[in-house]
Amino acid sequence: MELKLNFEKLGGLLPAVIQDFKTSKVLMVGFLNEEALRKTLETGLMHFYSRTRNKIWLKGETSKHYLVVKEVLVDCDEDTLLFKVEPKGPVCHEGYMSCFYRKLGEKNLEIIEEKMFNPEEVYGKKA
Amino acid sequence: MELKLNFEKLGGLLPAVIQDFKTSKVLMVGFLNEEALRKTLETGLMHFYSRTRNKIWLKGETSKHYLVVKEVLVDCDEDTLLFKVEPKGPVCHEGYMSCFYRKLGEKNLEIIEEKMFNPEEVYGKKA
Repeated sequence: MELKLNFEKLGGLLPAVIQDFKTSKVLMVGFLNEEALRKTLETGLMHFYSRTRNKIWLKGETSKHYLVVKEVLVDCDEDTLLFKVEPKGPVCHEGYMSCFYRKLGEKNLEIIEEKMFNPEEVYGKKA
Repeated sequence: MELKLNFEKLGGLLPAVIQDFKTSKVLMVGFLNEEALRKTLETGLMHFYSRTRNKIWLKGETSKHYLVVKEVLVDCDEDTLLFKVEPKGPVCHEGYMSCFYRKLGEKNLEIIEEKMFNPEEVYGKKA
């Protein structure tokens, strides 16, 4: 099928919301270029374009915490995607289920999730 | 409080996911610059920066379908926000509850929501 998407607004990238298809928790936001989208649809596993590393990456390539695509939704302007996924483990590289593990409180950011793994054990120590 | 956010990655903008705080439905994704964020936090109503119109806009200024902020979450990289909101009406300018009213099917995009209002009645006829 011909899927018309507007990659131009962000210079070749589309933002994508990643939501747990069972719990409806928003897990992360990432960016996809056309190649990352093609690989995601072909494999059924979320691939993103890293803006800092300038490359495609398979989410879970190190941690094995893959995101298995269950449903793909497209917004009205065809410039944003919503992926409903089954996460194979906690999503955030800091060790939390979601990247949104802090909320804005009266005076500071409050951590509202429990840490589920030690990042150094999964990703190795930072240099 | 001092809230450190990285507006630099997208040239002064942060992407923001808007989620219904009761139903957990993802309603839309918008972009905020520093002024839109300040107005949102001051008023408790979502303001966005329009990339096509180059201006701040109050969501609901025409339709009265305001988004009342209930909770603000910040991601690990401090470059993306998640707003849990109470929507005062359907969110999408096409008349649907959510901007993500279509899903990717086998052969085409399938509409998966019911239309809740006629856009011409709310926004006027397009020129």
